[in-house]
Amino acid sequence: MNCIPIMINGLPGNVARIMATSALRDERFSFVPFSLTGEEITQGEVSVDQTTVTLLKPSEREDKINDILGSYPGFICIDYTHPTAVNDNAKFYVAHKIPFVMGTTGGDRQDLERTVKNGSVPAVIAPNMAKQIVGLQAMLEYGANTFPGLFKGFSLQVTESHQQGKADTSGTAKALVACFNQLGTDFEISNIEKIRDPEIQKENLGVPEEYISGHGWHTYTLKAPDGSALFELKHNINGRQIYVSGTFDAVIFLKSKIDTNDFEQKLFTMIDVLTAGK
Amino acid sequence: MNCIPIMINGLPGNVARIMATSALRDERFSFVPFSLTGEEITQGEVSVDQTTVTLLKPSEREDKINDILGSYPGFICIDYTHPTAVNDNAKFYVAHKIPFVMGTTGGDRQDLERTVKNGSVPAVIAPNMAKQIVGLQAMLEYGANTFPGLFKGFSLQVTESHQQGKADTSGTAKALVACFNQLGTDFEISNIEKIRDPEIQKENLGVPEEYISGHGWHTYTLKAPDGSALFELKHNINGRQIYVSGTFDAVIFLKSKIDTNDFEQKLFTMIDVLTAGK
Repeated sequence: MNCIPIMINGLPGNVARIMATSALRDERFSFVPFSLTGEEITQGEVSVDQTTVTLLKPSEREDKINDILGSYPGFICIDYTHPTAVNDNAKFYVAHKIPFVMGTTGGDRQDLERTVKNGSVPAVIAPNMAKQIVGLQAMLEYGANTFPGLFKGFSLQVTESHQQGKADTSGTAKALVACFNQLGTDFEISNIEKIRDPEIQKENLGVPEEYISGHGWHTYTLKAPDGSALFELKHNINGRQIYVSGTFDAVIFLKSKIDTNDFEQKLFTMIDVLTAGK
Repeated sequence: MNCIPIMINGLPGNVARIMATSALRDERFSFVPFSLTGEEITQGEVSVDQTTVTLLKPSEREDKINDILGSYPGFICIDYTHPTAVNDNAKFYVAHKIPFVMGTTGGDRQDLERTVKNGSVPAVIAPNMAKQIVGLQAMLEYGANTFPGLFKGFSLQVTESHQQGKADTSGTAKALVACFNQLGTDFEISNIEKIRDPEIQKENLGVPEEYISGHGWHTYTLKAPDGSALFELKHNINGRQIYVSGTFDAVIFLKSKIDTNDFEQKLFTMIDVLTAGK
């Protein structure tokens, strides 16, 4: 396979850095040494491994993009920028006909969809790039739609452990709780037990030391009222590698859509990426 | 709701006894005090709670059935007999236009299907009456069909603990392994870890003492090759209560099909019972 040129936007941010480091080591890609960043970023470049990446603020990017497009024809953008940049960035990509994979959440999602649908290039947009979790969620949604009330009378218990900095309740946990509700359990989002204490994470859950600062461990437990049945689902993610794999799969999916000119629908999700394996 | 008369066949067998005990205490049903049994059974009747049930061997039942049908019009049979009786019993039910729910496995399943389809009464036939497990399996089958290869590269570990008397590997575990294989994992049925030692069940797994003689505890663990992701599914069943609930749901489903004369398809499975809740 020819290398796919990719530009990773969102440096010097954490997730973008992980993506860039992995991309540089991945033979399937060639690395475009520029990255869209925020207006507030003062540095002009950043080093990733031994590669120097030039950072482009919104005020600078319009002047530079045509040169970059000339030097790295056909590149695809990976967007892990800031939630406030979502809509503006999408408009920029579409205006310059740059296909993109966007893992950044937030912004006005309806506007985002409109931007892509009114443009002429395809994009994969997904709030969660961990494809096994997306697949799991799809299985539960199927169950909830097909067998509503299957777990009627069962009690539900949900715990989710993430790095201390994460203030809000996990979006994945909320989405799965919605499925379990449809499957018949009474459970409020506010009953999700959020674990953010590193000591509890290490001692009680067994999260490895090196992932205390970046992990997502989820447990969903269903119990029959008489205690005669227990169903449990866990998905424990350490670090960000699972998001890297999913994001790169999305890039490859997008490239095959472009190569075969098969993107009448333009806007794709991780479900499209997953089902493409069929 | 009017009581649904049910006859429970397979007494004095264990599962039939549990069904009968529960049925006698369940206001949704009236109990028909007869039970089809095997030719080798020497006793003529059996007590369930305070109720005496007359046992009918194959050689006796033809003479008695019309009287019973006259006394308990519209009854439905629940069949938890012996695998060797499956085909013969089904033919008996169909010949006498008795709708039935059959949880007995074994026999010639194709012949069984043909018998029902060529008859004029509906039946629910299912090798597993635990509806939450059937639903879970359906969700995984959906995932395996929709997202083949989703867990490619992941390792799988499967353990299943059952009472010491169960010699063969759990059919549910085998069915789920087939799904996980389609989802991309390399795993042989022979790698399923069968736990049959009561000491290990008590000490290591924590199966409660009172369920050592009747339980099914399953754990399926998927691990990413780099250790960065773990997915785990457990279904731990104590005793037989879950099969009672599912069987009675199947009876109620069948009754509603009969009452509305909605059984063109005649042969139903637990999936039909589950989706009826929609």
